[in-house]
Amino acid sequence: MKKVTIMDIAKKVNVSKTTVSMVLNNKEINVSDETRKKIFKSAKEMNYIPNTIARSLSTNKTNTIGIILPDIENPFFAMMAKTIEDTAEKLNYNVILCNSYNNTAKEEKYVKLLISKLVDGVIFAAGGKSEHNLNILTSNKVPFVLVDRYVESINEYSGVFCSNEQGIKLGVDYLYSKNKRKIAFVTGHKDLKIGEIRYNAYKKIAEELGVYDEELIIRDDFTIEGGMNSTKKLLALNKKIDAIFYSSDVMALGGFKVLIREGYRVPKDISILGYDNINISYILEPELTTISQPIYEMGQSACELLVNMINGTTENLTISLNPTLIERDTVS
Amino acid sequence: MKKVTIMDIAKKVNVSKTTVSMVLNNKEINVSDETRKKIFKSAKEMNYIPNTIARSLSTNKTNTIGIILPDIENPFFAMMAKTIEDTAEKLNYNVILCNSYNNTAKEEKYVKLLISKLVDGVIFAAGGKSEHNLNILTSNKVPFVLVDRYVESINEYSGVFCSNEQGIKLGVDYLYSKNKRKIAFVTGHKDLKIGEIRYNAYKKIAEELGVYDEELIIRDDFTIEGGMNSTKKLLALNKKIDAIFYSSDVMALGGFKVLIREGYRVPKDISILGYDNINISYILEPELTTISQPIYEMGQSACELLVNMINGTTENLTISLNPTLIERDTVS
Repeated sequence: MKKVTIMDIAKKVNVSKTTVSMVLNNKEINVSDETRKKIFKSAKEMNYIPNTIARSLSTNKTNTIGIILPDIENPFFAMMAKTIEDTAEKLNYNVILCNSYNNTAKEEKYVKLLISKLVDGVIFAAGGKSEHNLNILTSNKVPFVLVDRYVESINEYSGVFCSNEQGIKLGVDYLYSKNKRKIAFVTGHKDLKIGEIRYNAYKKIAEELGVYDEELIIRDDFTIEGGMNSTKKLLALNKKIDAIFYSSDVMALGGFKVLIREGYRVPKDISILGYDNINISYILEPELTTISQPIYEMGQSACELLVNMINGTTENLTISLNPTLIERDTVS
Repeated sequence: MKKVTIMDIAKKVNVSKTTVSMVLNNKEINVSDETRKKIFKSAKEMNYIPNTIARSLSTNKTNTIGIILPDIENPFFAMMAKTIEDTAEKLNYNVILCNSYNNTAKEEKYVKLLISKLVDGVIFAAGGKSEHNLNILTSNKVPFVLVDRYVESINEYSGVFCSNEQGIKLGVDYLYSKNKRKIAFVTGHKDLKIGEIRYNAYKKIAEELGVYDEELIIRDDFTIEGGMNSTKKLLALNKKIDAIFYSSDVMALGGFKVLIREGYRVPKDISILGYDNINISYILEPELTTISQPIYEMGQSACELLVNMINGTTENLTISLNPTLIERDTVS
């Protein structure tokens, strides 16, 4: 397997390798205009593309970043990955995609692989207790930006987050203002920090408003199936429920399906509220009311911040973005 | 920016760089067990990770592949990318993600970037008339595998496809067997080959069955919005329609939404049939009846085939997979 090289062009035009290299790199060299033209023409015809890897070794820069995400199939992370890649491309970077499935051992493998390939930086949506993996990056002086998910007990880092406390408060206050008192809250499993953060925020605010009910807290996977299962569990309680607050839209999509199947009218019989505002959240009919995270903006900010760190134009920085309430039709 | 090097370990253990290198690479060298242990311990403590880029230059192998897809946010390609990445990881390859947005100029930029970074191969879901870009790969002897989308007028290539003719025939025959005669067909714009292939297959089979109606053919984007718009156009015709065959699930999701909003009961008033069987196709209630493409299998086969080509264990090969009908609840 061998790409077109300067040697191939030199042979074709019948000049030295050095001449080709000097001409293509626009260096001063005494050759006729005709030869110069021939060299450029041949390079184009032969689809010559310079190898940037050799240069990477001397400059210590590959113009490649890694992104470690739980699962690209989750629409939230697909949107995030898309924006990161778009932004990186504009800034002349390539993106290596890594799916961790929230498995820290897999994260570690990827971190080491990315370092071995001399990536210039990493964007990291932590899948769990990822401190160890971040320390490996730090030891190897690879800059990284956390996105969406906080990691405790590392001292200094850059990150782009959207306040979960604020988002949950927006949601609970809104449901309360709509006279919902019997509110169920569906969140992730205890080992996923983002689920716990949202749960703790919910508990605090719901208790303040006097509407917290431990029995109406359900934990499951942040997936459609998780949303379906948790909704079945809620319905099986045979308790009056005014509204279900799902801490992810994907869960809300699954929950909606179960409610419709069981003959509930949304929002007439029961209101539902999502979290994230993924693109497909409006495919429901009625359309899903949800707490919007600025997903594209998070991805773009994370990428721009990382590139600034790579270029040494910024130190560690935490960027906090604000969630907003998107009133559609599933809360009455 | 500098990662931990052999020199850093040598300094810490107070031995030569060569000694560290020999020990870490398990080469024969006369050092005490104590020193050997110290070297391994320091390498671990300091999170030393060997640089594989230097080796890439001599072996001409980076263990990196590129994937060029139209849009990672489209659930079909998200599933595809996920499986490719999973398979690549098992085979010890990294994946560089490129979104082309069906723009061949963008594809060309990515092709050149991937070649300059010495990727070992490329998986390519063509966004249009991509012959020129595939020729650039061929000139540079970079093996590639086409996936999902055919490209005309290139002679020899590897590809993994799922027969569109067969899939469309499954769908039309099924609708016909359910006594649907007034059938609408929703496909992509004319410049996207996959949409044309599905349309041509539809036309042929529908004509054979005597149910082809030019007026009920609608073209739009392969997106939720495209599905919504085309459904609105169909309803505006004020013609009797028994069933709508959407040539992508994403379009069917948008179409379903418009039908429900306009008060149609699916499938009582109108049946709908999708294409692809993306993971979220079952979130509808009733669940979407669709033509299933083995998306995970396509991604896995494409990745395995590419790695075999990289390793020289296979020549160009076309793998054809079979679609199947998934009977759920939107066709009565």
